[in-house]
Amino acid sequence: MKRLNCLTTLSLLALTSTIMADNGKQFRKLLISSSENVNEKTWKLTDQDVPTSGKWSVTKKTLKGGRSEGVDLVTVDNGELSIVVIPTRGMSVFDVKSGDVRLGWDSPTTDIVHPQYVNLQSRGGLGWLEGFNEWLVRCGLEFAGHPGKDEFINNTGDKASMDLTLHGKIGNIPASEVEVIVDLIAPYRIRVRGVLYEKFFYGPKLKMVAEISTIPGSNSFQINDVITNLGAFDQEMQMIYHGNYGSPLLEKGARVIVAAKSVAPMNEHAAKAVDKHETFEGPTKGFIEEVYLYEPISDSEGKSMVMIHNAAADRSSTITWSTKELPYLTVWKNTAAAADGYVSGLEPGTGYPFNRRVERKFGRVPKLKSGESIKFGLEYGIQNGEAKVKDAVARVKAIQGGTKLKLIEQAPILD
Amino acid sequence: MKRLNCLTTLSLLALTSTIMADNGKQFRKLLISSSENVNEKTWKLTDQDVPTSGKWSVTKKTLKGGRSEGVDLVTVDNGELSIVVIPTRGMSVFDVKSGDVRLGWDSPTTDIVHPQYVNLQSRGGLGWLEGFNEWLVRCGLEFAGHPGKDEFINNTGDKASMDLTLHGKIGNIPASEVEVIVDLIAPYRIRVRGVLYEKFFYGPKLKMVAEISTIPGSNSFQINDVITNLGAFDQEMQMIYHGNYGSPLLEKGARVIVAAKSVAPMNEHAAKAVDKHETFEGPTKGFIEEVYLYEPISDSEGKSMVMIHNAAADRSSTITWSTKELPYLTVWKNTAAAADGYVSGLEPGTGYPFNRRVERKFGRVPKLKSGESIKFGLEYGIQNGEAKVKDAVARVKAIQGGTKLKLIEQAPILD
Amino acid sequence: MKRLNCLTTLSLLALTSTIMADNGKQFRKLLISSSENVNEKTWKLTDQDVPTSGKWSVTKKTLKGGRSEGVDLVTVDNGELSIVVIPTRGMSVFDVKSGDVRLGWDSPTTDIVHPQYVNLQSRGGLGWLEGFNEWLVRCGLEFAGHPGKDEFINNTGDKASMDLTLHGKIGNIPASEVEVIVDLIAPYRIRVRGVLYEKFFYGPKLKMVAEISTIPGSNSFQINDVITNLGAFDQEMQMIYHGNYGSPLLEKGARVIVAAKSVAPMNEHAAKAVDKHETFEGPTKGFIEEVYLYEPISDSEGKSMVMIHNAAADRSSTITWSTKELPYLTVWKNTAAAADGYVSGLEPGTGYPFNRRVERKFGRVPKLKSGESIKFGLEYGIQNGEAKVKDAVARVKAIQGGTKLKLIEQAPILD
Repeated sequence: MKRLNCLTTLSLLALTSTIMADNGKQFRKLLISSSENVNEKTWKLTDQDVPTSGKWSVTKKTLKGGRSEGVDLVTVDNGELSIVVIPTRGMSVFDVKSGDVRLGWDSPTTDIVHPQYVNLQSRGGLGWLEGFNEWLVRCGLEFAGHPGKDEFINNTGDKASMDLTLHGKIGNIPASEVEVIVDLIAPYRIRVRGVLYEKFFYGPKLKMVAEISTIPGSNSFQINDVITNLGAFDQEMQMIYHGNYGSPLLEKGARVIVAAKSVAPMNEHAAKAVDKHETFEGPTKGFIEEVYLYEPISDSEGKSMVMIHNAAADRSSTITWSTKELPYLTVWKNTAAAADGYVSGLEPGTGYPFNRRVERKFGRVPKLKSGESIKFGLEYGIQNGEAKVKDAVARVKAIQGGTKLKLIEQAPILD
Repeated sequence: MKRLNCLTTLSLLALTSTIMADNGKQFRKLLISSSENVNEKTWKLTDQDVPTSGKWSVTKKTLKGGRSEGVDLVTVDNGELSIVVIPTRGMSVFDVKSGDVRLGWDSPTTDIVHPQYVNLQSRGGLGWLEGFNEWLVRCGLEFAGHPGKDEFINNTGDKASMDLTLHGKIGNIPASEVEVIVDLIAPYRIRVRGVLYEKFFYGPKLKMVAEISTIPGSNSFQINDVITNLGAFDQEMQMIYHGNYGSPLLEKGARVIVAAKSVAPMNEHAAKAVDKHETFEGPTKGFIEEVYLYEPISDSEGKSMVMIHNAAADRSSTITWSTKELPYLTVWKNTAAAADGYVSGLEPGTGYPFNRRVERKFGRVPKLKSGESIKFGLEYGIQNGEAKVKDAVARVKAIQGGTKLKLIEQAPILD
Repeated sequence: MKRLNCLTTLSLLALTSTIMADNGKQFRKLLISSSENVNEKTWKLTDQDVPTSGKWSVTKKTLKGGRSEGVDLVTVDNGELSIVVIPTRGMSVFDVKSGDVRLGWDSPTTDIVHPQYVNLQSRGGLGWLEGFNEWLVRCGLEFAGHPGKDEFINNTGDKASMDLTLHGKIGNIPASEVEVIVDLIAPYRIRVRGVLYEKFFYGPKLKMVAEISTIPGSNSFQINDVITNLGAFDQEMQMIYHGNYGSPLLEKGARVIVAAKSVAPMNEHAAKAVDKHETFEGPTKGFIEEVYLYEPISDSEGKSMVMIHNAAADRSSTITWSTKELPYLTVWKNTAAAADGYVSGLEPGTGYPFNRRVERKFGRVPKLKSGESIKFGLEYGIQNGEAKVKDAVARVKAIQGGTKLKLIEQAPILD
């Protein structure tokens, strides 16, 4: 018996025996599977159901009404954090709540939108925006940046041009498989693992195993993704972890703290304010996005950090990741009026969000050999209270060390 | 307790108490709500369930099979009229039946098509036609007319061009919220109210509250819509109430009666038949659409009228509306063969159905300030019998009064 | 009583009486109907339920999970063959299994993809490929070949150009009606019949009745389709029966046997290997598709044949069809690496898979008059064992007779 069909009403005894059948190490529940014809419309597992520690739960539900009809949600509550994962929208994370801190933002799109209502090609390739309201959305996998023409090889082996669409397709592809996995040995990590494909004839053959996990009682969680090229040929891929922060972290006087060698503006408009790259404005009607491109520095273990803290520096959120995996960091400032979407992004990536033809030119598009995998691991933390924020800032500064951040005043010349 | 979950089996006593909790004035039932995770798949309310007068019912069902799978329908039967509303298709009205009069037409598209099967961009922006079979479909909200390039402001604050699609998106957006509201004081108006959004990041921020309502035993009903700009900036909007009439009102010798200052052909083809603008042909293979543009006249209360009556002038349908809200009227003649779609339209609007760039040039695109709302109210009536038709014609003629209709023989010069 | 709602638990007695009401000749069960608001999510009928002979069953299920969510499948098992039909994807046949022979292939797209996830216009009109994994998919009906510009008549009667998308729309249109019909007189044919429409305002008005049928215990089955022009005008249509074969029939040394007057390469690339048109390579990384265009020969009854057999010539599959109905045959070789899709196609059609503007120029686009129908009948057989393969080869050779196949070495000049 490979997978457990655990009902919350099962006795612990019964569970223990099925768990033993699974080697005593992990509880596993398949929630969604196109290959096994499964979609549990509602499901709940709590610490009462499996022998772990702490108070926690994992809940599956399916949304109803309007453009949300049929959207699957999996919520992990570890007792400290509540993490809402959207399998139907590429395993995006809608939001994360911890006390009065929320990772997330108030998008003009309020419904969680089923991909059937998103036409990526509309508005000249900006259709992605119609469903955009998540805290964390992956951009990728075949392409991840700005819309516009790029070349590809067509079905007769010839070069053809193709209109890339904003931020790629993965955020609007439902997971083919979703499994909840709970480690039955300390620290009892709770995992939501999805399998997604951008894989078709005369196209890329990319598989993503996307995992969000946390430990009961923790105020941090991890993203661990593995992208594999299942095709016979080398395959380009791109990935940007597009994390979007609104109130309460984002506010007038909020700051981003980076460990980086350099920062450059993405375009001429952003160049005008490059010296203020570390600070955020309050909601400002007519604010035009400013995007800054960082070269992160890493510590002896290859890890870099970025964080955003509020004006009082008593609430913050950190990202820790390997610069070998994600060598670039983009900070997106969009401190527009609340009604138009007051939001800023911290975006570690395999590159910057230029169109793929630009990224390729600058050598920022990884290529996976046939059968090759690439891993991305990110740890997100939430700090509540002045002392914890101070400590997090110190950790970023320690990575920066004596290196001076080079402020590049000109936007890159693209052509 | 804000909303009632009324089962038809509830006793009147129980209902009375819940109604009292709602202030004694209205019965309310939330049928669909993405924010409250509701979609009642089947539901029925009748005059037996709430203390009103007359015989009436409101029924909710969800369609099955083919391209209709998952389409929600709400049918209001007021004892005289049966009105079929499609929340899944922008709160369009599929048809209205009163005795042997039907507002509606026999489109080549027979299924009520779920928006997931409509790609508005297909066929060079004419994809909207693949789902087009309603009696009344709203065209709008960001744009409402012909497909083709127009300019908009993109996410970097620059001008960009965008391919508008035929008649806009609102007819293929499902309502996020649908409520049935029955007034519990005379005249016991029955309302189906939907809330829809064309609202997203770097896009319009428009909300529409769309209401169809009628009174038990009446042979008329109202559309009352409120569009609100929830964005921080001024926002253009367009609205055309695209009402489509087939048999039995439309037939050889049927007439349209308008109260108008002028009529002009939309293009050179229509110009050839502008002198016959008031009469309809029978089904004519190869008939090419003729579109006429009217400037309606209003009465002392600001109301104009248009009507279509059959050849014998013993059946008709009227529209009464405020020219302050909808200053323009388009009559669309498409008296093609029955197999190709024998239909004609009466279309009060904020403008004519040219591409938005043309409408803007002629000053016919309203702009809503931040937070501003615009209301549209239309009363549709059905007249059965010669006397009632005669009376309706007299009412239109009274609005026309002594003003002579100016017949403009040339189509507008657009560029 | 026109249609039976047969439960498998019904007694034979009850069934007999309902069958008698249906004239004693056929058992009929409506599984899906948008007009009658029906979609039986799960259903099963076996030889135990109706008086026929042999062991057989028909099963309906609805898929769950990922991009398959909501896809309806009907499986006919005649005791020898198991045929999986996909009403949601244009009545395509996913695969057919008979012993260790499988008609089908291993596409990079593993899920059976709901059309809501297929945007035919993406990738420059190649979006169809994202759902492509069936053994048999119909290409058509308005257009069937390569993407690219073609002209059509728009809603003002003018010529307009339109971007055709690869292989047309019918493979991504769900059947509006699906019925299972079992003949109650020998040989007890079991039919799955779907009704589909490419039919809308200012568009084509085409109806397809698509039937897959087989006889209990048989190792063959039939496709019988009727396309009708329901519009008032003549209407072009195209149809290609795109049958796709992978392992075990396709392998190094497998052969295609045709009865044909001539063969020509589709393009210059294929021209290089035209002399090897009859043999297949093993999986070959970087193999670029080679397409060959045949003029089939028919026998005295107007029937032609094509077959593919494996290297050992002990397993094969045949297609027998009327060249009056489908005068052209395309063989598509795509013996790429297994990971990229190792597959080849046998494709009888009304024409070849060039863009419709090319097909029209060469007189290969049938036009249906108003009300006119066109029928297509194909018999597919599976041969297991050397003797049966030998016999099938002999039948194809007999049709070829003394005619020598003309090998055309140049690709057609298109412009």
